This record gives sequence, C-alpha cells and structure tokens, in this order.
Amino acid sequence: MRHSRGFIQMKDCPGVVGYAAVGGKREAAGPLGRNFDKIYGNEFMGEKTFEKAESRMQKDACTLALEKSRLTPEEIDLIYGGDLLNQLVGAHYGLREFQIPFIGLYGACSTMALSIIMASLSVDTGFADYSLAVTSSHFCSAERQFRYPLEYGGQRPPTSQCTATASGAAVLGKGVKPPYVKQVYIGTITDLEQTDINNMGAAMAPAAARTLKLFFDKTQTAPDAYDLIVTGDLGKVGSELLVKLLKLEGIDISGKHKDCGLLLYDIEKQDVHSGGSGCGCSAAVLCSTLLKRIEEGQIHNMLFVATGALMSTITIQQGETIPGIAHLVHFSDSK
Amino acid sequence: MRHSRGFIQMKDCPGVVGYAAVGGKREAAGPLGRNFDKIYGNEFMGEKTFEKAESRMQKDACTLALEKSRLTPEEIDLIYGGDLLNQLVGAHYGLREFQIPFIGLYGACSTMALSIIMASLSVDTGFADYSLAVTSSHFCSAERQFRYPLEYGGQRPPTSQCTATASGAAVLGKGVKPPYVKQVYIGTITDLEQTDINNMGAAMAPAAARTLKLFFDKTQTAPDAYDLIVTGDLGKVGSELLVKLLKLEGIDISGKHKDCGLLLYDIEKQDVHSGGSGCGCSAAVLCSTLLKRIEEGQIHNMLFVATGALMSTITIQQGETIPGIAHLVHFSDSK
Repeated sequence: MRHSRGFIQMKDCPGVVGYAAVGGKREAAGPLGRNFDKIYGNEFMGEKTFEKAESRMQKDACTLALEKSRLTPEEIDLIYGGDLLNQLVGAHYGLREFQIPFIGLYGACSTMALSIIMASLSVDTGFADYSLAVTSSHFCSAERQFRYPLEYGGQRPPTSQCTATASGAAVLGKGVKPPYVKQVYIGTITDLEQTDINNMGAAMAPAAARTLKLFFDKTQTAPDAYDLIVTGDLGKVGSELLVKLLKLEGIDISGKHKDCGLLLYDIEKQDVHSGGSGCGCSAAVLCSTLLKRIEEGQIHNMLFVATGALMSTITIQQGETIPGIAHLVHFSDSK
Repeated sequence: MRHSRGFIQMKDCPGVVGYAAVGGKREAAGPLGRNFDKIYGNEFMGEKTFEKAESRMQKDACTLALEKSRLTPEEIDLIYGGDLLNQLVGAHYGLREFQIPFIGLYGACSTMALSIIMASLSVDTGFADYSLAVTSSHFCSAERQFRYPLEYGGQRPPTSQCTATASGAAVLGKGVKPPYVKQVYIGTITDLEQTDINNMGAAMAPAAARTLKLFFDKTQTAPDAYDLIVTGDLGKVGSELLVKLLKLEGIDISGKHKDCGLLLYDIEKQDVHSGGSGCGCSAAVLCSTLLKRIEEGQIHNMLFVATGALMSTITIQQGETIPGIAHLVHFSDSK
C-alpha cells in the first residue's frame, strides 16, 4: 500500500454506500436546509437534556444512513464515531443500541474526516466489509461545556464561530459506485501559539495549510486538479487566513475553496458570527450535500479537509496555546 | 484478511519493536516499581500543573519507547494516543513536539488496547511501517476532573479504584521478533445498567466477559490455550464478577486471570481500595512488565483485555447508566 507519513493511497478506493444528515432549526433555516434527511422541531429532539439530544442525533443519522445503504446494523463490522463532549458521550450513548464493534475517535471539529479515513482504511485493507463513520455536535451542549451556561447570555466576538446542531453519518464499503475515497492524509498536531479562544479559525488555519501543502506535494497535484477544496470549519476569519498562508507557499486555492462553516449558514442573515463549527458541521455539510453532488456528477474531485482545535477549557485557563490539526479525504467520482 | 465483526486475525503478526513505561511514586512503591523505565519524584514531574505533568509523562514514555526501538520520530508514520482528560489534552500537548501524524482515540481505561489494535492493524495492512501507541492517566488530574478537588479530601468507598499516575508507549513494526500481535478483538458498547460511579469494575466486567466469550468462540479456543488473561482495569470487585460471569457461560478463567489494577499495586498495603485504574494503568503494566515477560519467553500467549467505562460526570448527573467496553489483544511469542 503506497503511504508516506500520513498520506495513504487507497488500493481499491472504497465507496460511500449510504449517508445521512440530521440537524436543528438553525441548520434547517440555512442554505442547505432542504438537503437534510431529518430536521428536529426544537433543540431537545424529544429528549430531556441537550446531551441526550446530541446522542439522539447520532443515533438517527446512523439509522438513516443504514436505511439508505439498505444495510442492517448486523452487517456493519465497525463504527468509528466521536463528538465534542467530554468522554465522547454523544457517541457512547447514541450508538450503544446498535451493538456494533466501536472505536471512539477525538479530533475536535476534524473528527468526521478522521472517522471517514479510518472507516475507509478498514474497508480498503480488508479488516471490515462495511464500516460506519459518524460525528455530531450540538450548540447547547457545546456552549455549556466550553463557554457559558446558555442562560448567562454571554456575548461572542465577531471572530467566534457557532457550534452546529447536527450529525452526519456515512457507510463505507467496497466501492462499486461513487463517491469513492481515493486518498487520505492524516494530519499532524500544529501549534503556531495562537491563544485566542474566540478565534479558533486562526488556530486551525495553519494546520489546514500544512495538510494541503503536504498533500499537493505528495500527490504532485495543484488546486486545479480539484473541483472543490472544502474545509471544515475555519469560518470566515480562518478561511481568509488559509488562503493567505497557502499563497505564501505559492499555492492559490482562492477559486476552489469553500468552508463548511460558511456553507451551512447564511452568515449575512443568520446570527452565527464567523460561521459554523463543531464536528457536526462538516459532517452534516458532507452528508447532506457534498456527497450527493459527487454522486450526481456535479463534483468530480473534492478535497474534504476537516480541522480541529485541540485545547480544553482547562488548558486555556492554564495559559496554554491552541494546537490545531487537519485531516484530509480526497473524494472522487472515479477510482 | 480474516475478520468477523470486531475479531481480526493479523496476516503477518506485527511485533512490538520497543516499549516503555513511566510512573509516579505510588506506582514505584508497588510490586512492579522497579520495572518502570522512569519514575518521577513528585506528581508535578517538573511541570506547573497536573495536566501538564500528564502530558510530560506521555512525551517521556514515547521518547523512551523510541530510544529503545532505535527509531527517531521521523521514522514513525502514525501515533495513536489518548487519555482520560477532557478533549484528550494529555495526548495533544504531550505529543505535539514529535510532529508525527496523529490519531486521537478515546476508550476510557480501554484506550491502550485500542491504540495497540489500531497501531498493529496499520502495520499489518501496510499503511504504516512503524506506528506508536500511547496512553496515560494521572491521579491528580483525574480526581479533580471526575471526582472532587484533591483539597476536599473526599472519602472513597471500598469498591472504588485509584487512578494510576503512569504512561505506557509501544512501537509496532513488521514483526521480526516477539512480542507479536496475533489477533485482536474490537469490543462493543455493553450496558447492563449499572449506575454506581464508585463501582466501575462492576460496570466494565460484563463488557470484558462478552469480549472474552466472543473471542473464545471465534477462535475456537479455551482459557487453557493462554498463559495469562489479563484485564485492565477491573480491580478486585470487577475481577471477581468477571470470573463469575464467565463461569455462567461455562468458561473458567480463574487459574489464568490477573488484573492490571491488582498487579500495579499491593492492595493490602497501599491505599488503593479495589485496585488501580485509568488508561495509564494497563498501559504501564503492559509496557513495564508483561511485554518483557513475553520477550523473555516466560509468557507464550497472553490475552490483554483492557476495559473502559464510557460515562462522563454529566451523564451520571443526568441519571444515565454506565456503558462499558472491552478491547482485546492476543500477544504471542510466536507468529
């Protein structure tokens, strides 16, 4: 298998057999709202707490992805899942009923790319026939865990991003039809010593730039080779920084780049400041919209670069900087 | 590759090229103390906070494992790492300097088995030449995150376990000498609705019983085929329960079973109640002692079954039950 420190070329390019996205009201009101498989009427999703609601979203996203794949939980060998909650309880409680061997992943907002990478590798190298990748985030559970109680009504600066209330799930299997996973790049922890917790886009942009630069180097390709280079989630501030950082390396992605945090919401009209974030954001944009565009032939080659900020509230209180990471998946409509 | 829902038979049995364990004073005072590669004089390990101290342990364990493997960080393709801290900050800050592509895993106290499983599969299936598995836990950072501030001096009941202050790291590579990883079993979230947060051994024992039962079924083997079946970390209470649960299935592991939480400390003399826990406990027992015994031919076949309790403080406050999981690695001195 051709690989080089994080870069891996698939042997037989596994395919996304089925996928689904679920989301909240704010996500439904955004430009991609009608692409979701399920929208909930309020933030509790029929549960008693925000955390249980987040678990419910993971469960529903997986159930829908399985239905659309025409597979039962018994046919899935492995689930790779995660979320932003302490000890990944969104996944642990949301996925326990499926009774599928489970691998918990944490990469902050990069987790969906990481889940898809590991699920694809499992299928491509033959230790799973089918594997499921899922992540979620929930505005209310994230706010109270990472920031303030909702009731406090804390003000957010314009550089801050808004955690998406959403989940996305994708089933990977032997690739008989697109979207295919062709190549992946597992990122390295990258810390340029940014310390502003309200500007995580800036903390993550250097990781995204590094992953893209190394990916282009290792594949000997340029942005022209791709229809879309989509990050998740740098928001407005981080996206501008990414384009600038790559320009310094002589790489111009400006005509190809979009960010999941800016696709999910209408940032002019919706109160989301610099855009969406959370590992449900890129998962939902991917599983509601982007994979379908590949399936329908509107996108031929796409680099999905999910980024994560790897701090915790306690490391920030202790004066630490914010390390970032970016994992990349090259989706294609051909093997 | 032969696999069956979580069970995976390695093709060429990767080997543990090098390994190291580091620990605190309480661990040094235990029966395995002199097997550690490094012992720290106090719980801060030269750092300013317990969390930074935990990161330091991961860094030191990896540095030592690399030295003993005669490898540089540049030769390692992937690190799989994790810990108990919110957002895995033990790993993120401890490993950032190595600049190795990083995959964050969370399986509570089962994380070392999960890291070794993924690192072994990476090498065996050919998407890494060398990969590193590492986990840690720290009594002080865990106490204040999961229980009470240390200064509060909260009383612990006899069923409770004591989080180990330790880290273990292992480098996996093409297997030219033992210990080899022969088979693995990725566990399923198992919830028998235990709710006592001070008795996590009881919450995890059913998951360990299930993983062992299914492993014996799939391999058509019995406990007799192994010199040692070592769990991590059920403690005294959970260990007794595991033996009983398997007896109900007609499987007698009583002559073969040990628990890392009971090996690390002298529970009669040290104030650790039901034994050790934390994902540094099984990692350190494995990397200080067990792997060496295989290398030296004292153990031929060992099942390493690390168990995790997948709750968070918030799910417990919300009245949830405690789901468990158990991942298994079959180490052997022959392929």
